[in-house]
Amino acid sequence: MQTTTKESLHALSFEEALGETKTEVVSFLEELLKKNVGPGALGRAMEASVMGGGKRLRPFFHRQACRILDVQEGASIAVAAAIELIHCYSLVHDDLPCMDDAELRRGAPTIHVRFGENTALLAGNALLTLAFEVIANLEVSAPQRVQLIQCLARASGAQGMMAGQYMDLHPSPSPNLDEISRMQRLKTGALIEACIESALILKGGVSRHPLLIFGHEVGLAFQILDDLKDLLGHTSAIGKDTGNDGSKVTFVSLLGPQEAAEKVHSCLRIAQEALPKGPLAAPLRGVVEALNMELQGLLA
Amino acid sequence: MQTTTKESLHALSFEEALGETKTEVVSFLEELLKKNVGPGALGRAMEASVMGGGKRLRPFFHRQACRILDVQEGASIAVAAAIELIHCYSLVHDDLPCMDDAELRRGAPTIHVRFGENTALLAGNALLTLAFEVIANLEVSAPQRVQLIQCLARASGAQGMMAGQYMDLHPSPSPNLDEISRMQRLKTGALIEACIESALILKGGVSRHPLLIFGHEVGLAFQILDDLKDLLGHTSAIGKDTGNDGSKVTFVSLLGPQEAAEKVHSCLRIAQEALPKGPLAAPLRGVVEALNMELQGLLA
Repeated sequence: MQTTTKESLHALSFEEALGETKTEVVSFLEELLKKNVGPGALGRAMEASVMGGGKRLRPFFHRQACRILDVQEGASIAVAAAIELIHCYSLVHDDLPCMDDAELRRGAPTIHVRFGENTALLAGNALLTLAFEVIANLEVSAPQRVQLIQCLARASGAQGMMAGQYMDLHPSPSPNLDEISRMQRLKTGALIEACIESALILKGGVSRHPLLIFGHEVGLAFQILDDLKDLLGHTSAIGKDTGNDGSKVTFVSLLGPQEAAEKVHSCLRIAQEALPKGPLAAPLRGVVEALNMELQGLLA
Repeated sequence: MQTTTKESLHALSFEEALGETKTEVVSFLEELLKKNVGPGALGRAMEASVMGGGKRLRPFFHRQACRILDVQEGASIAVAAAIELIHCYSLVHDDLPCMDDAELRRGAPTIHVRFGENTALLAGNALLTLAFEVIANLEVSAPQRVQLIQCLARASGAQGMMAGQYMDLHPSPSPNLDEISRMQRLKTGALIEACIESALILKGGVSRHPLLIFGHEVGLAFQILDDLKDLLGHTSAIGKDTGNDGSKVTFVSLLGPQEAAEKVHSCLRIAQEALPKGPLAAPLRGVVEALNMELQGLLA
Protein backbone atom coordinates (compact mmCIF):
# COMPACT_ATOMS: atom_id res chain seq x y z
CA MET A 1 0.00 0.00 0.00
CA GLN A 2 1.29 3.43 -0.92
CA THR A 3 -1.29 5.24 1.19
CA THR A 4 0.22 7.13 4.07
CA THR A 5 -0.34 6.15 7.67
CA LYS A 6 -2.26 9.36 8.25
CA GLU A 7 -4.75 8.44 5.57
CA SER A 8 -5.11 4.92 6.83
CA LEU A 9 -5.79 6.15 10.35
CA HIS A 10 -8.42 8.81 9.86
CA ALA A 11 -10.54 10.36 7.17
CA LEU A 12 -9.37 13.79 6.00
CA SER A 13 -12.05 16.44 5.81
CA PHE A 14 -12.70 18.15 2.47
CA GLU A 15 -10.98 21.32 3.73
CA GLU A 16 -7.92 19.48 5.05
CA ALA A 17 -7.51 17.55 1.80
CA LEU A 18 -8.10 20.66 -0.32
CA GLY A 19 -5.47 22.51 1.69
CA GLU A 20 -3.02 19.65 1.27
CA THR A 21 -3.56 19.50 -2.49
CA LYS A 22 -3.19 23.25 -2.78
CA THR A 23 0.14 23.19 -0.94
CA GLU A 24 1.64 20.35 -2.96
CA VAL A 25 0.36 21.51 -6.36
CA VAL A 26 1.22 25.18 -5.84
CA SER A 27 4.70 24.18 -4.72
CA PHE A 28 5.12 22.02 -7.86
CA LEU A 29 3.85 24.85 -10.09
CA GLU A 30 6.17 27.35 -8.43
CA GLU A 31 9.22 25.19 -9.11
CA LEU A 32 8.01 24.46 -12.65
CA LEU A 33 7.51 28.12 -13.53
CA LYS A 34 10.94 29.08 -12.17
CA LYS A 35 12.42 27.02 -15.00
CA ASN A 36 9.79 27.43 -17.71
CA VAL A 37 8.37 30.95 -17.87
CA GLY A 38 8.94 33.17 -20.85
CA PRO A 39 10.79 36.51 -20.98
CA GLY A 40 9.69 39.72 -19.23
CA ALA A 41 6.00 40.39 -18.84
CA LEU A 42 5.16 37.12 -20.64
CA GLY A 43 6.73 35.24 -17.76
CA ARG A 44 5.14 37.49 -15.16
CA ALA A 45 1.73 37.03 -16.78
CA MET A 46 2.13 33.25 -16.72
CA GLU A 47 3.12 33.35 -13.06
CA ALA A 48 0.34 35.75 -12.09
CA SER A 49 -2.21 33.55 -13.82
CA VAL A 50 -1.03 30.34 -12.18
CA MET A 51 -0.03 31.66 -8.74
CA GLY A 52 -2.96 34.07 -8.39
CA GLY A 53 -4.97 31.90 -6.06
CA GLY A 54 -7.95 29.73 -6.84
CA LYS A 55 -9.28 26.75 -4.93
CA ARG A 56 -7.35 24.21 -7.08
CA LEU A 57 -10.47 22.06 -7.22
CA ARG A 58 -9.42 20.21 -10.38
CA PRO A 59 -6.09 19.16 -8.87
CA PHE A 60 -8.06 18.18 -5.77
CA PHE A 61 -10.39 15.90 -7.78
CA HIS A 62 -7.43 14.28 -9.51
CA ARG A 63 -5.40 13.81 -6.32
CA GLN A 64 -8.34 12.35 -4.41
CA ALA A 65 -9.14 9.92 -7.21
CA CYS A 66 -5.47 8.89 -7.18
CA ARG A 67 -5.59 8.30 -3.43
CA ILE A 68 -8.66 6.13 -3.75
CA LEU A 69 -6.95 4.22 -6.58
CA ASP A 70 -3.65 4.02 -4.67
CA VAL A 71 -1.57 5.72 -7.39
CA GLN A 72 2.04 6.86 -6.98
CA GLU A 73 2.10 10.38 -5.52
CA GLY A 74 4.84 12.13 -7.54
CA ALA A 75 3.37 11.58 -10.98
CA SER A 76 -0.09 12.39 -9.67
CA ILE A 77 0.98 15.83 -8.38
CA ALA A 78 2.52 16.61 -11.77
CA VAL A 79 -0.66 15.56 -13.60
CA ALA A 80 -2.73 17.68 -11.20
CA ALA A 81 -0.46 20.63 -11.97
CA ALA A 82 -0.78 20.09 -15.74
CA ILE A 83 -4.57 20.08 -15.44
CA GLU A 84 -4.41 23.29 -13.41
CA LEU A 85 -2.23 24.87 -16.15
CA ILE A 86 -4.96 24.06 -18.70
CA HIS A 87 -7.59 25.51 -16.36
CA CYS A 88 -5.53 28.71 -15.87
CA TYR A 89 -5.00 29.08 -19.63
CA SER A 90 -8.74 28.79 -20.18
CA LEU A 91 -9.42 31.51 -17.58
CA VAL A 92 -6.86 33.92 -19.06
CA HIS A 93 -8.36 33.56 -22.53
CA ASP A 94 -11.94 33.53 -21.22
CA ASP A 95 -11.42 36.90 -19.55
CA LEU A 96 -10.10 38.58 -22.74
CA PRO A 97 -12.10 41.50 -24.20
CA CYS A 98 -13.18 39.41 -27.21
CA MET A 99 -14.48 36.68 -24.87
CA ASP A 100 -16.16 37.54 -21.52
CA ASP A 101 -14.36 40.91 -21.21
CA ALA A 102 -13.86 40.50 -17.45
CA GLU A 103 -11.80 42.96 -15.46
CA LEU A 104 -11.75 41.07 -12.19
CA ARG A 105 -10.87 37.47 -11.34
CA ARG A 106 -10.44 36.22 -7.77
CA GLY A 107 -10.72 39.80 -6.57
CA ALA A 108 -7.77 41.03 -8.65
CA PRO A 109 -7.44 42.67 -12.08
CA THR A 110 -7.43 40.06 -14.84
CA ILE A 111 -4.24 39.17 -16.73
CA HIS A 112 -4.93 41.30 -19.81
CA VAL A 113 -5.79 44.28 -17.59
CA ARG A 114 -2.45 43.93 -15.81
CA PHE A 115 -0.18 42.88 -18.68
CA GLY A 116 -1.96 43.88 -21.88
CA GLU A 117 -4.05 41.88 -24.26
CA ASN A 118 -1.41 40.32 -26.49
CA THR A 119 0.75 39.27 -23.54
CA ALA A 120 -2.30 37.62 -21.97
CA LEU A 121 -3.06 35.81 -25.23
CA LEU A 122 0.52 34.51 -25.51
CA ALA A 123 0.68 33.61 -21.81
CA GLY A 124 -2.47 31.49 -22.18
CA ASN A 125 -1.00 29.72 -25.20
CA ALA A 126 2.25 29.11 -23.35
CA LEU A 127 0.43 27.63 -20.34
CA LEU A 128 -1.46 25.18 -22.57
CA THR A 129 1.77 24.18 -24.29
CA LEU A 130 3.53 23.79 -20.93
CA ALA A 131 0.77 21.46 -19.71
CA PHE A 132 1.54 19.03 -22.53
CA GLU A 133 5.27 19.36 -21.89
CA VAL A 134 4.76 18.53 -18.20
CA ILE A 135 2.89 15.36 -19.15
CA ALA A 136 5.52 14.41 -21.74
CA ASN A 137 8.20 14.74 -19.03
CA LEU A 138 6.36 12.65 -16.38
CA GLU A 139 8.11 9.78 -14.68
CA VAL A 140 5.61 7.14 -15.73
CA SER A 141 5.75 4.79 -18.72
CA ALA A 142 5.75 6.37 -22.20
CA PRO A 143 2.43 4.64 -23.13
CA GLN A 144 0.83 6.19 -20.02
CA ARG A 145 2.18 9.63 -20.94
CA VAL A 146 0.73 9.23 -24.43
CA GLN A 147 -2.65 8.21 -23.00
CA LEU A 148 -2.65 11.18 -20.64
CA ILE A 149 -1.93 13.56 -23.54
CA GLN A 150 -4.74 11.99 -25.57
CA CYS A 151 -7.08 12.38 -22.60
CA LEU A 152 -6.21 16.04 -21.92
CA ALA A 153 -6.16 16.99 -25.61
CA ARG A 154 -9.64 15.50 -26.10
CA ALA A 155 -10.96 17.25 -22.99
CA SER A 156 -9.58 20.66 -23.94
CA GLY A 157 -9.74 20.62 -27.76
CA ALA A 158 -12.22 21.31 -30.55
CA GLN A 159 -14.59 18.64 -29.29
CA GLY A 160 -14.09 19.44 -25.62
CA MET A 161 -13.52 22.71 -23.81
CA MET A 162 -13.07 24.80 -26.99
CA ALA A 163 -16.42 23.53 -28.30
CA GLY A 164 -18.05 24.38 -24.97
CA GLN A 165 -16.63 27.90 -24.93
CA TYR A 166 -17.69 28.41 -28.54
CA MET A 167 -21.25 27.16 -27.88
CA ASP A 168 -21.46 29.35 -24.80
CA LEU A 169 -20.55 32.45 -26.84
CA HIS A 170 -22.62 31.49 -29.89
CA PRO A 171 -25.74 29.64 -28.72
CA SER A 172 -28.49 28.77 -31.17
CA PRO A 173 -31.34 31.33 -31.22
CA SER A 174 -33.41 29.45 -28.66
CA PRO A 175 -31.30 26.72 -27.06
CA ASN A 176 -33.07 23.86 -25.33
CA LEU A 177 -32.03 21.89 -22.28
CA ASP A 178 -30.13 19.31 -24.32
CA GLU A 179 -28.01 21.97 -25.98
CA ILE A 180 -27.31 23.69 -22.68
CA SER A 181 -26.39 20.34 -21.08
CA ARG A 182 -23.99 19.58 -23.90
CA MET A 183 -22.42 23.04 -23.76
CA GLN A 184 -21.96 22.86 -19.98
CA ARG A 185 -20.49 19.38 -20.14
CA LEU A 186 -17.97 20.45 -22.78
CA LYS A 187 -17.07 23.81 -21.29
CA THR A 188 -16.45 22.71 -17.72
CA GLY A 189 -17.35 19.06 -17.33
CA ALA A 190 -14.88 17.63 -19.84
CA LEU A 191 -11.82 18.85 -17.92
CA ILE A 192 -13.28 17.77 -14.55
CA GLU A 193 -13.96 14.33 -16.00
CA ALA A 194 -10.38 14.29 -17.28
CA CYS A 195 -9.23 14.76 -13.67
CA ILE A 196 -10.72 11.34 -12.91
CA GLU A 197 -9.83 9.69 -16.21
CA SER A 198 -6.19 10.72 -15.83
CA ALA A 199 -6.12 9.13 -12.38
CA LEU A 200 -7.37 5.88 -13.91
CA ILE A 201 -4.66 6.10 -16.61
CA LEU A 202 -2.01 6.46 -13.90
CA LYS A 203 -3.56 3.41 -12.22
CA GLY A 204 -3.10 1.47 -15.44
CA GLY A 205 -6.39 1.44 -17.30
CA VAL A 206 -9.60 3.38 -17.87
CA SER A 207 -12.40 0.88 -17.41
CA ARG A 208 -16.01 1.78 -16.62
CA HIS A 209 -15.09 2.89 -13.14
CA PRO A 210 -17.77 4.41 -10.83
CA LEU A 211 -15.42 7.35 -10.19
CA LEU A 212 -16.09 8.44 -13.80
CA ILE A 213 -19.75 8.86 -12.88
CA PHE A 214 -18.67 10.93 -9.91
CA GLY A 215 -16.60 13.19 -12.22
CA HIS A 216 -19.42 13.55 -14.70
CA GLU A 217 -22.07 14.50 -12.16
CA VAL A 218 -19.88 16.78 -10.08
CA GLY A 219 -18.74 18.57 -13.25
CA LEU A 220 -22.34 19.31 -14.19
CA ALA A 221 -23.34 20.34 -10.63
CA PHE A 222 -20.35 22.62 -10.54
CA GLN A 223 -21.27 24.53 -13.67
CA ILE A 224 -24.94 24.97 -12.76
CA LEU A 225 -23.88 26.17 -9.33
CA ASP A 226 -21.54 28.67 -11.01
CA ASP A 227 -24.44 30.02 -13.07
CA LEU A 228 -26.57 30.26 -9.91
CA LYS A 229 -23.77 32.22 -8.26
CA ASP A 230 -23.61 34.53 -11.28
CA LEU A 231 -27.33 35.16 -10.88
CA LEU A 232 -27.61 35.32 -7.10
CA GLY A 233 -24.09 36.05 -5.83
CA HIS A 234 -22.13 39.24 -5.40
CA THR A 235 -18.72 40.25 -6.72
CA SER A 236 -17.46 40.90 -3.21
CA ALA A 237 -18.27 37.37 -2.13
CA ILE A 238 -16.96 35.37 -5.07
CA GLY A 239 -14.20 37.72 -6.23
CA LYS A 240 -15.01 37.93 -9.91
CA ASP A 241 -17.30 40.02 -12.05
CA THR A 242 -20.86 38.72 -11.81
CA GLY A 243 -23.62 39.41 -14.21
CA ASN A 244 -21.28 39.31 -17.23
CA ASP A 245 -23.09 36.19 -18.29
CA GLY A 246 -26.50 37.77 -17.65
CA SER A 247 -27.59 37.68 -21.28
CA LYS A 248 -26.57 34.06 -21.76
CA VAL A 249 -29.01 31.19 -21.75
CA THR A 250 -28.04 28.81 -18.94
CA PHE A 251 -29.65 25.98 -17.02
CA VAL A 252 -30.67 28.63 -14.53
CA SER A 253 -32.30 30.95 -17.06
CA LEU A 254 -34.08 28.00 -18.73
CA LEU A 255 -35.31 26.25 -15.60
CA GLY A 256 -35.40 29.04 -13.06
CA PRO A 257 -33.28 28.98 -9.88
CA GLN A 258 -35.50 26.50 -8.02
CA GLU A 259 -35.49 23.76 -10.65
CA ALA A 260 -31.80 24.39 -11.41
CA ALA A 261 -31.08 23.91 -7.72
CA GLU A 262 -32.97 20.60 -7.81
CA LYS A 263 -30.83 19.51 -10.75
CA VAL A 264 -27.69 20.30 -8.75
CA HIS A 265 -29.08 18.28 -5.84
CA SER A 266 -29.79 15.34 -8.08
CA CYS A 267 -26.30 15.46 -9.66
CA LEU A 268 -24.70 15.60 -6.24
CA ARG A 269 -26.76 12.63 -5.00
CA ILE A 270 -25.68 10.48 -7.95
CA ALA A 271 -22.06 11.64 -7.46
CA GLN A 272 -22.23 10.71 -3.78
CA GLU A 273 -23.58 7.25 -4.59
CA ALA A 274 -20.73 6.62 -7.06
CA LEU A 275 -18.11 7.00 -4.33
CA PRO A 276 -16.62 4.03 -2.48
CA LYS A 277 -17.09 3.63 1.27
CA GLY A 278 -14.20 4.16 3.66
CA PRO A 279 -11.90 6.96 4.81
CA LEU A 280 -10.03 7.48 1.50
CA ALA A 281 -13.17 8.81 -0.19
CA ALA A 282 -14.05 11.07 2.73
CA PRO A 283 -12.70 14.28 1.09
CA LEU A 284 -14.74 13.64 -2.08
CA ARG A 285 -17.83 12.97 0.05
CA GLY A 286 -16.92 16.21 1.78
CA VAL A 287 -16.81 18.21 -1.46
CA VAL A 288 -20.31 16.99 -2.31
CA GLU A 289 -21.54 18.11 1.10
CA ALA A 290 -19.76 21.46 0.72
CA LEU A 291 -21.38 22.03 -2.70
CA ASN A 292 -24.77 21.15 -1.20
CA MET A 293 -24.21 23.65 1.58
CA GLU A 294 -23.09 26.31 -0.89
CA LEU A 295 -26.31 25.72 -2.77
CA GLN A 296 -28.39 26.10 0.39
CA GLY A 297 -26.55 29.33 1.18
CA LEU A 298 -27.33 30.76 -2.24
CA LEU A 299 -31.01 29.91 -1.99
CA ALA A 300 -31.37 31.13 1.60
CA MET B 1 15.73 0.81 -48.21
CA GLN B 2 12.30 2.45 -47.91
CA THR B 3 13.05 5.11 -50.52
CA THR B 4 10.83 4.86 -53.54
CA THR B 5 12.12 3.86 -56.96
CA LYS B 6 11.31 7.32 -58.24
CA GLU B 7 13.58 8.91 -55.68
CA SER B 8 16.38 6.48 -56.33
CA LEU B 9 16.22 7.16 -60.04
CA HIS B 10 16.21 10.92 -60.27
CA ALA B 11 16.50 13.97 -58.11
CA LEU B 12 13.21 15.82 -57.52
CA SER B 13 13.29 19.54 -58.06
CA PHE B 14 12.31 21.82 -55.18
CA GLU B 15 8.99 22.61 -56.88
CA GLU B 16 8.17 18.96 -57.59
CA ALA B 17 8.95 17.94 -54.01
CA LEU B 18 7.08 20.93 -52.58
CA GLY B 19 4.03 20.01 -54.69
CA GLU B 20 4.25 16.40 -53.55
CA THR B 21 4.42 17.39 -49.88
CA LYS B 22 1.56 19.80 -50.29
CA THR B 23 -0.66 17.11 -51.83
CA GLU B 24 0.07 14.49 -49.19
CA VAL B 25 -0.09 16.82 -46.18
CA VAL B 26 -3.19 18.69 -47.33
CA SER B 27 -4.92 15.37 -47.95
CA PHE B 28 -3.97 14.18 -44.44
CA LEU B 29 -5.19 17.45 -42.90
CA GLU B 30 -8.46 17.28 -44.83
CA GLU B 31 -9.21 13.80 -43.49
CA LEU B 32 -8.12 14.80 -40.01
CA LEU B 33 -10.35 17.87 -39.87
CA LYS B 34 -13.36 15.90 -41.11
CA LYS B 35 -13.22 14.00 -37.83
CA ASN B 36 -11.85 16.63 -35.46
CA VAL B 37 -13.27 20.07 -36.08
CA GLY B 38 -15.45 21.78 -33.56
CA PRO B 39 -19.11 22.84 -33.94
CA GLY B 40 -20.40 25.50 -36.34
CA ALA B 41 -18.19 28.46 -37.15
CA LEU B 42 -15.47 27.12 -34.83
CA GLY B 43 -15.05 24.16 -37.17
CA ARG B 44 -15.26 26.32 -40.27
CA ALA B 45 -12.64 28.68 -38.87
CA MET B 46 -10.30 25.76 -38.16
CA GLU B 47 -10.79 24.44 -41.68
CA ALA B 48 -10.38 27.85 -43.30
CA SER B 49 -7.17 28.42 -41.40
CA VAL B 50 -5.66 25.05 -42.29
CA MET B 51 -7.02 24.63 -45.83
CA GLY B 52 -6.54 28.26 -46.88
CA GLY B 53 -3.41 27.69 -48.89
CA GLY B 54 0.16 28.37 -47.94
CA LYS B 55 3.32 26.87 -49.32
CA ARG B 56 3.52 24.18 -46.60
CA LEU B 57 7.24 24.87 -46.28
CA ARG B 58 7.52 23.46 -42.75
CA PRO B 59 5.98 20.12 -43.77
CA PHE B 60 8.32 20.21 -46.77
CA PHE B 61 11.40 20.62 -44.55
CA HIS B 62 10.25 17.78 -42.31
CA ARG B 63 9.39 15.44 -45.18
CA GLN B 64 12.65 16.07 -47.01
CA ALA B 65 14.69 15.48 -43.86
CA CYS B 66 12.75 12.22 -43.40
CA ARG B 67 13.55 11.17 -46.96
CA ILE B 68 17.24 11.84 -46.48
CA LEU B 69 17.11 9.86 -43.22
CA ASP B 70 15.02 7.08 -44.79
CA VAL B 71 12.15 7.35 -42.29
CA GLN B 72 8.80 5.56 -42.62
CA GLU B 73 6.43 7.70 -44.72
CA GLY B 74 3.08 7.41 -42.88
CA ALA B 75 4.27 8.72 -39.52
CA SER B 76 6.28 11.41 -41.23
CA ILE B 77 3.25 12.83 -43.07
CA ALA B 78 1.32 12.97 -39.78
CA VAL B 79 4.18 14.78 -38.03
CA ALA B 80 4.41 17.22 -40.95
CA ALA B 81 0.67 17.86 -40.59
CA ALA B 82 0.97 18.42 -36.82
CA ILE B 83 3.73 20.98 -37.41
CA GLU B 84 1.55 22.72 -40.00
CA LEU B 85 -1.32 22.83 -37.45
CA ILE B 86 0.99 24.64 -35.03
CA HIS B 87 2.06 27.03 -37.78
CA CYS B 88 -1.58 27.73 -38.73
CA TYR B 89 -2.53 28.33 -35.08
CA SER B 90 0.32 30.84 -34.78
CA LEU B 91 -0.87 32.69 -37.89
CA VAL B 92 -4.50 32.89 -36.71
CA HIS B 93 -3.42 34.34 -33.36
CA ASP B 94 -0.74 36.55 -34.92
CA ASP B 95 -3.31 38.21 -37.17
CA LEU B 96 -5.68 39.08 -34.26
CA PRO B 97 -6.38 42.77 -33.55
CA CYS B 98 -4.39 42.66 -30.29
CA MET B 99 -1.40 41.21 -32.16
CA ASP B 100 -0.50 42.31 -35.71
CA ASP B 101 -4.09 43.36 -36.53
CA ALA B 102 -3.87 42.01 -40.08
CA GLU B 103 -6.91 41.92 -42.34
CA LEU B 104 -5.37 39.93 -45.19
CA ARG B 105 -3.47 36.65 -45.25
CA ARG B 106 -2.63 34.79 -48.47
CA GLY B 107 -4.80 37.26 -50.37
CA ALA B 108 -7.95 36.47 -48.33
CA PRO B 109 -9.57 38.03 -45.25
CA THR B 110 -7.99 36.74 -42.05
CA ILE B 111 -9.81 34.28 -39.79
CA HIS B 112 -11.04 36.84 -37.23
CA VAL B 113 -12.30 39.09 -40.05
CA ARG B 114 -14.31 36.18 -41.45
CA PHE B 115 -15.44 34.43 -38.28
CA GLY B 116 -15.11 36.97 -35.48
CA GLU B 117 -12.42 37.48 -32.93
CA ASN B 118 -13.41 35.01 -30.25
CA THR B 119 -14.03 32.21 -32.76
CA ALA B 120 -10.56 32.87 -34.22
CA LEU B 121 -9.02 32.76 -30.75
CA LEU B 122 -10.71 29.43 -29.93
CA ALA B 123 -9.91 27.98 -33.37
CA GLY B 124 -6.22 28.76 -32.85
CA ASN B 125 -6.28 27.10 -29.44
CA ALA B 126 -8.06 24.06 -30.87
CA LEU B 127 -5.47 23.71 -33.68
CA LEU B 128 -2.60 23.74 -31.17
CA THR B 129 -4.37 21.14 -29.05
CA LEU B 130 -5.09 19.01 -32.12
CA ALA B 131 -1.41 19.07 -33.07
CA PHE B 132 -0.49 17.38 -29.79
CA GLU B 133 -3.36 14.91 -30.20
CA VAL B 134 -2.12 13.97 -33.68
CA ILE B 135 1.35 13.24 -32.29
CA ALA B 136 -0.10 11.26 -29.36
CA ASN B 137 -2.03 9.12 -31.88
CA LEU B 138 0.94 8.43 -34.19
CA GLU B 139 1.80 4.89 -35.18
CA VAL B 140 5.34 4.97 -33.84
CA SER B 141 6.63 3.82 -30.45
CA ALA B 142 5.28 5.59 -27.35
CA PRO B 143 8.77 6.87 -26.38
CA GLN B 144 9.08 8.45 -29.84
CA ARG B 145 5.67 10.09 -29.48
CA VAL B 146 6.72 11.47 -26.10
CA GLN B 147 9.98 12.83 -27.57
CA LEU B 148 8.09 14.46 -30.46
CA ILE B 149 5.71 16.17 -28.02
CA GLN B 150 8.66 17.40 -25.96
CA CYS B 151 10.29 18.72 -29.11
CA LEU B 152 7.19 20.54 -30.42
CA ALA B 153 6.21 21.88 -26.98
CA ARG B 154 9.69 23.33 -26.49
CA ALA B 155 9.67 24.88 -29.96
CA SER B 156 6.25 26.47 -29.60
CA GLY B 157 6.08 27.29 -25.86
CA ALA B 158 7.18 30.02 -23.45
CA GLN B 159 10.82 29.57 -24.36
CA GLY B 160 10.19 29.06 -28.07
CA MET B 161 7.67 30.61 -30.44
CA MET B 162 5.65 32.36 -27.69
CA ALA B 163 8.83 34.03 -26.41
CA GLY B 164 9.68 35.12 -29.96
CA GLN B 165 6.22 36.58 -30.56
CA TYR B 166 6.35 38.36 -27.22
CA MET B 167 9.82 39.84 -27.90
CA ASP B 168 8.70 40.91 -31.35
CA LEU B 169 5.74 42.84 -29.89
CA HIS B 170 7.66 44.17 -26.88
CA PRO B 171 11.27 44.83 -27.90
CA SER B 172 13.65 46.59 -25.54
CA PRO B 173 13.93 50.36 -26.19
CA SER B 174 16.92 49.97 -28.51
CA PRO B 175 17.41 46.32 -29.38
CA ASN B 176 20.80 45.21 -30.66
CA LEU B 177 21.65 42.54 -33.19
CA ASP B 178 21.91 39.81 -30.53
CA GLU B 179 18.42 40.52 -29.26
CA ILE B 180 16.99 40.60 -32.77
CA SER B 181 18.77 37.32 -33.61
CA ARG B 182 17.34 35.67 -30.52
CA MET B 183 13.84 36.98 -31.22
CA GLN B 184 13.94 35.79 -34.84
CA ARG B 185 15.28 32.38 -33.89
CA LEU B 186 12.52 31.89 -31.32
CA LYS B 187 9.66 33.34 -33.37
CA THR B 188 10.27 31.45 -36.61
CA GLY B 189 13.47 29.47 -36.33
CA ALA B 190 12.48 27.24 -33.42
CA LEU B 191 9.59 25.61 -35.30
CA ILE B 192 11.65 25.22 -38.50
CA GLU B 193 14.41 23.56 -36.47
CA ALA B 194 11.75 21.31 -34.94
CA CYS B 195 10.89 20.14 -38.48
CA ILE B 196 14.40 18.65 -38.68
CA GLU B 197 14.64 17.51 -35.06
CA SER B 198 11.33 15.64 -35.35
CA ALA B 199 12.66 13.81 -38.42
CA LEU B 200 15.68 12.71 -36.39
CA ILE B 201 13.37 11.53 -33.58
CA LEU B 202 11.43 9.42 -36.10
CA LYS B 203 14.77 8.03 -37.27
CA GLY B 204 15.53 6.97 -33.70
CA GLY B 205 17.76 9.60 -32.14
CA VAL B 206 18.70 13.26 -32.20
CA SER B 207 22.47 13.39 -32.38
CA ARG B 208 24.51 16.35 -33.58
CA HIS B 209 23.37 15.84 -37.15
CA PRO B 210 24.42 18.30 -39.91
CA LEU B 211 20.75 18.61 -40.92
CA LEU B 212 20.18 20.51 -37.65
CA ILE B 213 22.59 23.17 -38.91
CA PHE B 214 20.62 23.31 -42.14
CA GLY B 215 17.40 23.88 -40.15
CA HIS B 216 18.97 26.56 -37.99
CA GLU B 217 20.42 28.57 -40.88
CA VAL B 218 17.42 28.24 -43.18
CA GLY B 219 15.13 29.31 -40.34
CA LEU B 220 17.11 32.49 -39.85
CA ALA B 221 17.41 33.22 -43.59
CA PHE B 222 13.70 32.72 -43.91
CA GLN B 223 12.76 35.29 -41.29
CA ILE B 224 15.17 37.98 -42.53
CA LEU B 225 13.86 37.41 -46.04
CA ASP B 226 10.33 37.86 -44.70
CA ASP B 227 11.29 41.19 -43.18
CA LEU B 228 12.91 42.23 -46.46
CA LYS B 229 9.68 41.35 -48.24
CA ASP B 230 7.73 43.42 -45.71
CA LEU B 231 10.00 46.36 -46.51
CA LEU B 232 10.40 45.91 -50.26
CA GLY B 233 7.46 43.76 -51.36
CA HIS B 234 3.88 44.56 -52.23
CA THR B 235 0.62 43.16 -50.87
CA SER B 236 -0.42 42.06 -54.34
CA ALA B 237 2.69 39.96 -54.80
CA ILE B 238 2.88 38.19 -51.46
CA GLY B 239 -0.80 38.14 -50.57
CA LYS B 240 -0.67 39.57 -47.07
CA ASP B 241 -0.62 43.00 -45.55
CA THR B 242 2.85 44.49 -45.79
CA GLY B 243 4.17 47.35 -43.78
CA ASN B 244 2.28 46.25 -40.63
CA ASP B 245 5.64 45.53 -39.12
CA GLY B 246 7.04 48.88 -40.30
CA SER B 247 7.60 50.28 -36.83
CA LYS B 248 9.33 47.14 -35.58
CA VAL B 249 13.06 46.82 -35.25
CA THR B 250 14.24 43.96 -37.46
CA PHE B 251 17.52 42.73 -38.93
CA VAL B 252 16.61 44.81 -41.94
CA SER B 253 15.97 48.04 -40.03
CA LEU B 254 19.16 47.56 -37.97
CA LEU B 255 21.50 46.57 -40.80
CA GLY B 256 19.83 48.09 -43.83
CA PRO B 257 18.63 45.97 -46.76
CA GLN B 258 22.09 45.40 -48.26
CA GLU B 259 23.76 44.01 -45.16
CA ALA B 260 20.62 42.05 -44.25
CA ALA B 261 20.74 40.49 -47.71
CA GLU B 262 24.37 39.52 -47.14
CA LYS B 263 23.33 37.86 -43.87
CA VAL B 264 20.70 35.85 -45.76
CA HIS B 265 23.34 34.83 -48.31
CA SER B 266 25.70 33.71 -45.60
CA CYS B 267 22.98 31.67 -43.82
CA LEU B 268 22.02 30.02 -47.08
CA ARG B 269 25.63 29.13 -47.88
CA ILE B 270 26.12 27.45 -44.49
CA ALA B 271 22.76 25.68 -44.91
CA GLN B 272 23.82 24.44 -48.35
CA GLU B 273 27.11 23.09 -47.00
CA ALA B 274 25.31 21.17 -44.26
CA LEU B 275 23.36 19.10 -46.79
CA PRO B 276 24.50 15.64 -47.91
CA LYS B 277 25.42 14.95 -51.55
CA GLY B 278 23.17 12.86 -53.76
CA PRO B 279 19.67 13.02 -55.24
CA LEU B 280 17.71 12.72 -51.97
CA ALA B 281 18.90 16.14 -50.81
CA ALA B 282 18.19 17.78 -54.17
CA PRO B 283 14.88 19.39 -53.07
CA LEU B 284 16.54 20.96 -50.01
CA ARG B 285 19.39 22.23 -52.20
CA GLY B 286 16.64 23.52 -54.46
CA VAL B 287 14.93 25.48 -51.66
CA VAL B 288 18.21 27.19 -50.85
CA GLU B 289 18.59 28.18 -54.50
CA ALA B 290 14.97 29.37 -54.63
CA LEU B 291 15.45 31.52 -51.53
CA ASN B 292 18.62 32.96 -53.06
CA MET B 293 16.71 33.78 -56.23
CA GLU B 294 13.87 35.34 -54.26
CA LEU B 295 16.44 37.51 -52.52
CA GLN B 296 17.93 38.62 -55.86
CA GLY B 297 14.44 39.43 -57.11
CA LEU B 298 13.72 41.62 -54.09
CA LEU B 299 16.96 43.54 -54.44
CA ALA B 300 16.71 43.97 -58.22
